[in-house]
Amino acid sequence: MSTPVGSGNTNDSQTMRPPGEMFTLENPVFCCYLFWATVLVVKMLLMSLLTAIQRFRYKIFPNQEDLFFKNLEVQFNDPHVERVRRAHRNDMENILPYFIMSLIYISTNPSVGVACNLFRVASVARIIHTLVYAVYPVPQPSRILAFGTMLLITFYMAAVVALRTLSFI
Amino acid sequence: MSTPVGSGNTNDSQTMRPPGEMFTLENPVFCCYLFWATVLVVKMLLMSLLTAIQRFRYKIFPNQEDLFFKNLEVQFNDPHVERVRRAHRNDMENILPYFIMSLIYISTNPSVGVACNLFRVASVARIIHTLVYAVYPVPQPSRILAFGTMLLITFYMAAVVALRTLSFI
Amino acid sequence: MSTPVGSGNTNDSQTMRPPGEMFTLENPVFCCYLFWATVLVVKMLLMSLLTAIQRFRYKIFPNQEDLFFKNLEVQFNDPHVERVRRAHRNDMENILPYFIMSLIYISTNPSVGVACNLFRVASVARIIHTLVYAVYPVPQPSRILAFGTMLLITFYMAAVVALRTLSFI
Repeated sequence: MSTPVGSGNTNDSQTMRPPGEMFTLENPVFCCYLFWATVLVVKMLLMSLLTAIQRFRYKIFPNQEDLFFKNLEVQFNDPHVERVRRAHRNDMENILPYFIMSLIYISTNPSVGVACNLFRVASVARIIHTLVYAVYPVPQPSRILAFGTMLLITFYMAAVVALRTLSFI
Repeated sequence: MSTPVGSGNTNDSQTMRPPGEMFTLENPVFCCYLFWATVLVVKMLLMSLLTAIQRFRYKIFPNQEDLFFKNLEVQFNDPHVERVRRAHRNDMENILPYFIMSLIYISTNPSVGVACNLFRVASVARIIHTLVYAVYPVPQPSRILAFGTMLLITFYMAAVVALRTLSFI
Repeated sequence: MSTPVGSGNTNDSQTMRPPGEMFTLENPVFCCYLFWATVLVVKMLLMSLLTAIQRFRYKIFPNQEDLFFKNLEVQFNDPHVERVRRAHRNDMENILPYFIMSLIYISTNPSVGVACNLFRVASVARIIHTLVYAVYPVPQPSRILAFGTMLLITFYMAAVVALRTLSFI
């Protein structure tokens, strides 16, 4: 929070970057955000495909027009499909707010080391969350720990941003 | 919409900011967005914890591996848990699009007074929405009014941005 | 990915824009993003109103305090309401990650023609998805094609961004 403006991200800039200019490819924190946010976007979209795989495997379809096989009726509440859908919903509840929180956290010009490692740990934790929830269910507390990791990182970023902008309440 | 570029945000800048440079801590509109977006991110994440509290209070768990107490079975459709989950889903439906809409609205260089007050009113309205929906249910139209406030503010921002960028259709 | 920095978006700038400065109204790619993201935000918010219309038409309300008519009880699982809610959830699963992915894709300074057309096609595809899913159900594969269009465009943008920022893993 006390990082001086403009420090920590001048390694590969070709030109003088004005202070406060954070959202460019010359800022390594932003580049690291780009990479890991992309990984998480792809991970989330793959949940749709995982749901589709489960729907075809167990022949569970929620709409009349989706009945690709004969003698089927629309069905809900299949445990295999619903487990993937719960994991997907949990992604939306946690990763989407994290996308915004970590993006605006970059504007506070955090230290490159701290910010990049927060992005890495949070992203890997959510990949683990998906594995132990939707792909191969594992006993607790594995899922709680993976869930809590991104949650705490998001709360930390929220604290940094809120303290920095408290006068604009 | 007719605000001249570069006006209204030169109060605390140390250096000349190029016109159109909106997403920096030198822009009070962006700072106000940072603060209130952070408040809403934290509010949304607390819905997960509120759901967990309800699950433990009423011993309603949706996964086999979550059965922390003996002689329990997975259960769904508990009204106390589902009410919090509906409120949480409503947050995702409304606050997440608002995050993007209000972020890009800043790029149109709105008046500081108008933009900051829109952020404040929308955010407080959604906190009230959570209180009257998930924490202590209150008769209508309290929830509809709280819901409609952010909805109308988002539509207003959408109108400003769409009119400004209509030539790029 | 090999577009030279600063090219392709100097048509209407009044001043010299520093290289890497992408998120301003002087960048036509960003303006096109603004317009179509706004269209999709409005489309998503209208799903809430479509759900409300279905709830009033079929008198299906999920909360005790929403029973605006006499002799009603809370009800779930009405097929007309649930179809709109599934379409709305599908929007959240796909459009919200797309908002982040396409926003950060702009920072890679893509060609104006490619980026703008991706935004246009993806947005129109999701409008069609809503029409054939929630408004007037149409036989498959219309919905799958509309769904797949935005999905593939998001994967393409993810590939561009990930390849560009791979060294920050």
